[in-house]
Amino acid sequence: MKDSIDFIYKQQKEISVIGGIAALIGWDQMTYMPPKGALERSEQSSFISRIAHDKVVSDKLWNHIKNLSKKENFDKLRDRDKEVVIRLEKDVEKARKIPSEFVERFSKTTTIAYPAWQEAREKSDFRIFLPHLEKIVDLEKEYSSYIDLPGPRYNSLLDGYEEGMTVDIIKKEFDFLKTQLVEILSKIKDSEIFKNQKEINLKFNIEQQKRLCNIITEKMLLSKESSRLDVSTHPFTTSIGYDDVRFTTNFERENPLFSFFSTVHEAGHALYELGMPKGEFVNTVISDSPSLGLHESQSRFWENMIARNRSFWSYFYPVFEKTCPGCLKNIDIEMLYRLINQVKPSFIRVEADELTYSLHVILRFELENMMIEDEVKISELPDVWNEKMKELLDIIPNNDKEGVLQDMHWSGGSLGYFPTYAIGTIYSAQIFNKIICEKPDVLHEIENADFKNILSWLRENIHKHGRRFSADEIIKKCCGEGLNSKIFVEYLKDKYYNLYDV
Amino acid sequence: MKDSIDFIYKQQKEISVIGGIAALIGWDQMTYMPPKGALERSEQSSFISRIAHDKVVSDKLWNHIKNLSKKENFDKLRDRDKEVVIRLEKDVEKARKIPSEFVERFSKTTTIAYPAWQEAREKSDFRIFLPHLEKIVDLEKEYSSYIDLPGPRYNSLLDGYEEGMTVDIIKKEFDFLKTQLVEILSKIKDSEIFKNQKEINLKFNIEQQKRLCNIITEKMLLSKESSRLDVSTHPFTTSIGYDDVRFTTNFERENPLFSFFSTVHEAGHALYELGMPKGEFVNTVISDSPSLGLHESQSRFWENMIARNRSFWSYFYPVFEKTCPGCLKNIDIEMLYRLINQVKPSFIRVEADELTYSLHVILRFELENMMIEDEVKISELPDVWNEKMKELLDIIPNNDKEGVLQDMHWSGGSLGYFPTYAIGTIYSAQIFNKIICEKPDVLHEIENADFKNILSWLRENIHKHGRRFSADEIIKKCCGEGLNSKIFVEYLKDKYYNLYDV
Repeated sequence: MKDSIDFIYKQQKEISVIGGIAALIGWDQMTYMPPKGALERSEQSSFISRIAHDKVVSDKLWNHIKNLSKKENFDKLRDRDKEVVIRLEKDVEKARKIPSEFVERFSKTTTIAYPAWQEAREKSDFRIFLPHLEKIVDLEKEYSSYIDLPGPRYNSLLDGYEEGMTVDIIKKEFDFLKTQLVEILSKIKDSEIFKNQKEINLKFNIEQQKRLCNIITEKMLLSKESSRLDVSTHPFTTSIGYDDVRFTTNFERENPLFSFFSTVHEAGHALYELGMPKGEFVNTVISDSPSLGLHESQSRFWENMIARNRSFWSYFYPVFEKTCPGCLKNIDIEMLYRLINQVKPSFIRVEADELTYSLHVILRFELENMMIEDEVKISELPDVWNEKMKELLDIIPNNDKEGVLQDMHWSGGSLGYFPTYAIGTIYSAQIFNKIICEKPDVLHEIENADFKNILSWLRENIHKHGRRFSADEIIKKCCGEGLNSKIFVEYLKDKYYNLYDV
Repeated sequence: MKDSIDFIYKQQKEISVIGGIAALIGWDQMTYMPPKGALERSEQSSFISRIAHDKVVSDKLWNHIKNLSKKENFDKLRDRDKEVVIRLEKDVEKARKIPSEFVERFSKTTTIAYPAWQEAREKSDFRIFLPHLEKIVDLEKEYSSYIDLPGPRYNSLLDGYEEGMTVDIIKKEFDFLKTQLVEILSKIKDSEIFKNQKEINLKFNIEQQKRLCNIITEKMLLSKESSRLDVSTHPFTTSIGYDDVRFTTNFERENPLFSFFSTVHEAGHALYELGMPKGEFVNTVISDSPSLGLHESQSRFWENMIARNRSFWSYFYPVFEKTCPGCLKNIDIEMLYRLINQVKPSFIRVEADELTYSLHVILRFELENMMIEDEVKISELPDVWNEKMKELLDIIPNNDKEGVLQDMHWSGGSLGYFPTYAIGTIYSAQIFNKIICEKPDVLHEIENADFKNILSWLRENIHKHGRRFSADEIIKKCCGEGLNSKIFVEYLKDKYYNLYDV
């Protein structure tokens, strides 16, 4: 039994070391790799994924786990080992459901699909991507047949990103949310303020944007000793080690606030990564996030609840003024706050405002369900996409580039991923609501950009658990109930009816 | 037999993929890794080294190689396969001489020795490093007993960096070179120009330095699609893939020309890496440099023969003037050329001028031989170092930081490495001499920063061979003879007697 315990910890440690290497390979690919390095990079990536996968699904590891989970042995384990064994058994059992041959086939397909998607998007021609997406959807069906959870196929896809979450639960939440969002949006659109709202083009140069990002990450208490901010086309966060978390932004988007908000967003992810349980759970399966939704709750929390909050700008309006002299000429704090929270139905998810964002996600959730259940022909996706855009946001994309081709997720075979964005957004409102109730002084702290109590709360109530509990359990523990979009809707009504004088 | 061929190529490919990953891990550690990432990084490094080593020394690979090298099989191989099998057999045989247990012990010792050296150097206190260096020297002796080449122990160390090179050959060259360099130096020191020479402090800001580095790497025809320049404390070059070569410089040294010359130097290495044979030898043991000396010949060629050449400044003096307006006020092209080639005995090898540089190397070569043959107590090294400095350069370091503790090599267990710096320097003069003879127009090309013919010559005569031949064979092929410091000495006399009016 000692042998088995030693072995499973040693393996988890190695898997964690390999995971760090894989993260570095991915990070470099998105930040510094010279363009022609791509081909060899894909071989490096797949090599490292393969050895990680081999380690996870090895019979040797499985036999040691089974040995430890035998009742007579299990009962003798320390509590901490029990938790690790249960979690590890679940993970490995799931991984072993997928044949290695399938993993390889899947990876080959997506490796080819990604550049095809890029080309299709560039030329705004869905036909280039169509045959690849058809193959990917077939593979997703095959994948779900291996995982084989009860209920619709989509449950098995969801489970890879949001363990324990089901189509039923999401559908119920999303249906409610959709109705509410459409209603709120329609009221706002009828308002005078909406009808008269104008675009204001702010202009900060790259150096100024960098300085602002530096200031906010410092205020968010992100250690430069253990993390760093770089530049990539699409912002992301990744962990190379417990004390080596990388996040990125982009300073060249049209909207100069993009870099600021994306930095806040990714810094939220980074803080969560830096808060993962170490100590007795270091380098075990426990020391990770239980779901992408919970991860997204952390980024959305900082991005929306904090940085789009009126109080936040009491501190940051003068900081912006000082960092970018003249940039806010004729724009007072109230105007800036409104600008940051301007509602405007638009085509691109990643550029959507806080209110309409979730409608973009719901659209994708509904389409993915139809795809996986053969309720739509893949060739008809662009039309169905546009119909849904009309239905939800009352706008129709001019072309597939700003429609069905905008996101890279499907090219990577990530069906089931999108809902986690909305789940995280809903969670973030629940968490903020809870913090406000517990600490009425929090708005005052935000006004002073004093985030240490907020961060402690997140560390204590979310981060420190790692995967000891599911996302649902963690949210129930700290908020008193699981996923509930009512709080999010209340928050939106309160904020946006106020903003638009509805 | 087909099985064996397939297997050895597949393994070499995997070893090459792993090598790329290892290079990325090392590169990131020296460029972007947040400070606290170091501990986990060392685990990632040693994991990846271990799987590479396991692959190289595996019995399976060895058996396939032995199968192919059996006469009846070998005779049936294609020429290209024959070359690969011979080379691979040598490499694997050598790697298999070293017990894995030793590799681990060696790596653990150097991992601890490195920070000890850092601390010792910082505090200029050799005693902190002493016990580590003693262990390392013992390990080097043990290592040489495994490799067990004929002649002195040091031959077995040398072979790891400069295959086929022996203490006898080097000693003969270095003894001659030493006498000559000391004589040249003494004549120069007696000259009026030397006695009257002054320090001139140039000042270029970081942006200007960056622009200059960009210009020179472009002129050197280094593709930005396949390479990139970053910043690290000590400049270096590494290959992550055939089309992904990284090199670094440092813009914060006191001498603002440091970044320019170190960029030229590393770009020379990078060009060599980008010129490795692909085609039928891609991802085989052939596609690499046969020795560090030959690698260094490429960097020294560009740094010394090209960039410290008078002709080079016909083009670059105006470039500098334009890029850094005002910086060369009161400094004409002749003065700049003299400044760049100023001879001045100094303590630190990496800051030494072209003339005295090799004396620093010879000193280390002599000391390392004494260490490995127990002709010096490690505790007495600082004194012996200082005596040799007096003998060779006629100056005595004020402390161990600028003496015996200045280089990191010993802390990493790299005894036998230093001579390759001088070998490369000697080779570079032989190569330049040959090019001048073959293409008398070359100085004119350098005046125009037109390097395409020079690069083609290097590609054709050095780069394209990879390891099909030894360094010695390659130099013999293109220069008509092997290592010969006479040409280097003639070059130095010609250049520096002229500069100092001797």
